[in-house]
Amino acid sequence: MARNGPQLDRRAGGRGAPLPSQGVSHKRVRTSQSCETVMRLSRYFLPVLKENPAEAQIVSHRYMLRAGMIKQQAAGIYSWLPLGFRVLKRIEEIVHEEQIRAGHIPLLMPTLQPADLWRESGRYEDYGEEMLRITDRHKRDLLYGPTNEEMITDIFRAHIGSYKDLPLTLYHVQWKFRDEIRPRFGVMRGREFYMKDGYNFDLTKEDALHAYNRHLVSYLRTYERMGLQAIPMRADSGPIGGDDTHEFLVLADTGESEVFYDSKVTDIHLGSREIDYDSHEECRSVMEEFTALYARTDETHDEARFNERVPAERQRRARGIEVGQIFYFGTKYSEPMGATVVNDKGERAPVHMGSHGIGVSRLAGAIIEASHDDKGIIWPEGVTPFHCGIVNLKQGDAATDGACGEIYGALTAKGLEPLYDDRDERAGAKFATMDMIGLPWRITVGPRGLASGKVELTSRRTGESEEMTPEAAVARIEEIYAGA
Amino acid sequence: MARNGPQLDRRAGGRGAPLPSQGVSHKRVRTSQSCETVMRLSRYFLPVLKENPAEAQIVSHRYMLRAGMIKQQAAGIYSWLPLGFRVLKRIEEIVHEEQIRAGHIPLLMPTLQPADLWRESGRYEDYGEEMLRITDRHKRDLLYGPTNEEMITDIFRAHIGSYKDLPLTLYHVQWKFRDEIRPRFGVMRGREFYMKDGYNFDLTKEDALHAYNRHLVSYLRTYERMGLQAIPMRADSGPIGGDDTHEFLVLADTGESEVFYDSKVTDIHLGSREIDYDSHEECRSVMEEFTALYARTDETHDEARFNERVPAERQRRARGIEVGQIFYFGTKYSEPMGATVVNDKGERAPVHMGSHGIGVSRLAGAIIEASHDDKGIIWPEGVTPFHCGIVNLKQGDAATDGACGEIYGALTAKGLEPLYDDRDERAGAKFATMDMIGLPWRITVGPRGLASGKVELTSRRTGESEEMTPEAAVARIEEIYAGA
Repeated sequence: MARNGPQLDRRAGGRGAPLPSQGVSHKRVRTSQSCETVMRLSRYFLPVLKENPAEAQIVSHRYMLRAGMIKQQAAGIYSWLPLGFRVLKRIEEIVHEEQIRAGHIPLLMPTLQPADLWRESGRYEDYGEEMLRITDRHKRDLLYGPTNEEMITDIFRAHIGSYKDLPLTLYHVQWKFRDEIRPRFGVMRGREFYMKDGYNFDLTKEDALHAYNRHLVSYLRTYERMGLQAIPMRADSGPIGGDDTHEFLVLADTGESEVFYDSKVTDIHLGSREIDYDSHEECRSVMEEFTALYARTDETHDEARFNERVPAERQRRARGIEVGQIFYFGTKYSEPMGATVVNDKGERAPVHMGSHGIGVSRLAGAIIEASHDDKGIIWPEGVTPFHCGIVNLKQGDAATDGACGEIYGALTAKGLEPLYDDRDERAGAKFATMDMIGLPWRITVGPRGLASGKVELTSRRTGESEEMTPEAAVARIEEIYAGA
Repeated sequence: MARNGPQLDRRAGGRGAPLPSQGVSHKRVRTSQSCETVMRLSRYFLPVLKENPAEAQIVSHRYMLRAGMIKQQAAGIYSWLPLGFRVLKRIEEIVHEEQIRAGHIPLLMPTLQPADLWRESGRYEDYGEEMLRITDRHKRDLLYGPTNEEMITDIFRAHIGSYKDLPLTLYHVQWKFRDEIRPRFGVMRGREFYMKDGYNFDLTKEDALHAYNRHLVSYLRTYERMGLQAIPMRADSGPIGGDDTHEFLVLADTGESEVFYDSKVTDIHLGSREIDYDSHEECRSVMEEFTALYARTDETHDEARFNERVPAERQRRARGIEVGQIFYFGTKYSEPMGATVVNDKGERAPVHMGSHGIGVSRLAGAIIEASHDDKGIIWPEGVTPFHCGIVNLKQGDAATDGACGEIYGALTAKGLEPLYDDRDERAGAKFATMDMIGLPWRITVGPRGLASGKVELTSRRTGESEEMTPEAAVARIEEIYAGA
């Protein structure tokens, strides 16, 4: 690195230069034209259901179907309809941004993998029936990747040979498949699912543990940006292997895991504090802060220890949804697969590795489980599919149509994306749709209000409304998202 | 639609409000911090090869391997390494932007599909060995989608029943699989490939032909933004079916198709003209302009007609790479699958459909075939993985390190993404890397130039260099991409 270059701000949360996109999302030039087709309900494809679908047992599954976000195509395999696709992309984008901020490098591995790679690590037979095994026309064994430790190790060993190229963390966001025996709960336990998985390669165990801590911090920030509190809990490593592992759990009654924790753990937030991801000390200190208190899943729960360490009044037994997991597993893959580097003494040694996953498609469901009411979804600002809704109470009326058009134009001119309900429908139906799809803010435009120059801005979360001019409503929406 | 709303600029090429992202790429807030890790070669993962790989027969395959863009994981199945991933994402983003501009709505269908859907259309048995058939743990038949006519028709029939919801065009960009008997030429004829496929649903044949024309126009703009001339040629419909179809071909000696055309066809460009995608007349007129002259692939070539219609001096016989295809096939799928709507007379009729594809991963190869020299790739500005390179001729020198750091900081502050070669390498090696990976612009910083306050700006395409101040170089790069 340049020794005398300007001091670049590598800390998270600062307000310096733009974050590089790594090709993930690079609006170099904001191109022209506001295309009305795609943000006006009359021309959009939003198949909202009026009835609760019988097959959905949990609220996120029910609401994702009712809000026209997904459609099941086979057991545990879903299409993401336009609204669902928008949410999925917003979640993915936050994941990318926080990975890049932490210095991790994106690439993309394919969905299908050769079985031979998994024979090298010994996991081909071990993995069991959850692995979808495929034979191609030449009778070669392939599989639909459930995870990518073998493949990333293969990429590493093909190209890296020196300690000078370390540390290195590579990750991708890609579709995976696990042939669950009983897929259910919609995208929460699907078979084809979208996941971020990242892999660190380090010379020493100490460096690899820093990578572990760095991932922990970046995950905390990722979830908080999505409006979630995800608590790191000591977990079991399962088929990935290794000693150190934490799962991130979002508390929700419908969670599949039983969790046990000290209630004080829910008081800790990363917030806007700045972290230098290169600093071992800073990352370790955040890790320790977030993992010092007792918080475990049923896999690792120790009742005696729980009682000993947590005062009775702070003991919590609840349920949680797993939204991510980090692992340190040392040389488990690098050794059998020959992923080695030469160190500064000329000696060759296997690299220390870990892997780190975030359930991207599952998060869409987990966020709904954590944020809804009996009318529908309530999206946190960070992941909402549209920044706000515009409801025209009297479609076809010159004044309301004109005002809605102006608000729509003013918002899109600022780069915000409203969803304008310009359908010829009753007010009640429009409100019900907006409540179900859960946009956090709604601007309602009716003839009576307009007569005195006012529209209504309503918070989906609190239900509170405020009258103001259209200009003030646009300014408020802009202000809300400037900080999101 | 609002009758009295402001007249929104729906024309392509205008400079109005930002294009809505549809969740595809929505930098709402440019977040903080310039992360040096990911744009400094010393910390990046760019495994450039010095030797030509023996297995690569064509230049794009060779250069993608040599530039560290891809790694083969199985026959016809590739990992996209960081540099390749950036190019792939830029191509995908242009595709999304132009689809959204044309009023098409993105969603995402899964990679795996139930065989039953394909039994309904009659294509399950017909499709032959190129379809990758899969059996899950419950012995249910799945397949890895090679295309999505059946699934999109299924989504349509589940949710749409009235002519009032038409016209509608839905599309996605997703991984597909075709089990080619002999995968070769790298990503140009892979098995797992990334494709945009879109489907229009219209009440009448006339409306569906407008959708066909609208896609043709949007594709022309898409390819031109990537620096490509892709000529629409009358083609054969193959397993998709239907009467009307055009393929888009990029002329290249390594193309798999023999093409026959009137040389005047290469003089036609869409350029920056504005198109109203809702206007049947405008879209038809562009379609006619681009398809009036003789241009056919070997599948539909008619030698007698060629000789009759094209003067001998304008007859061209060449080779081309197929980068997209559009189809109108009427009710071929909607009829057997029961995708109908009720029209304004209360009668139920199958919808008229077409499908429209762009080979996203293949385009990375096609662009290289069309734009390279003997030193490596030459990326058009529209798809380059980094906007420019910065080469430090004397790493460790206070003056050059400082100047490079300042240039890097100035570019990133403007939202541009340079790749800074800050490795401790000889100048020759740095230039060879930059030439191979093909960034269109390079800023070279050496001690001699700096002594008189100058750096060098070099065009990869022309090889021409110009001396100027660092500030002027940054301003020039900004200017170049402001128009891209």
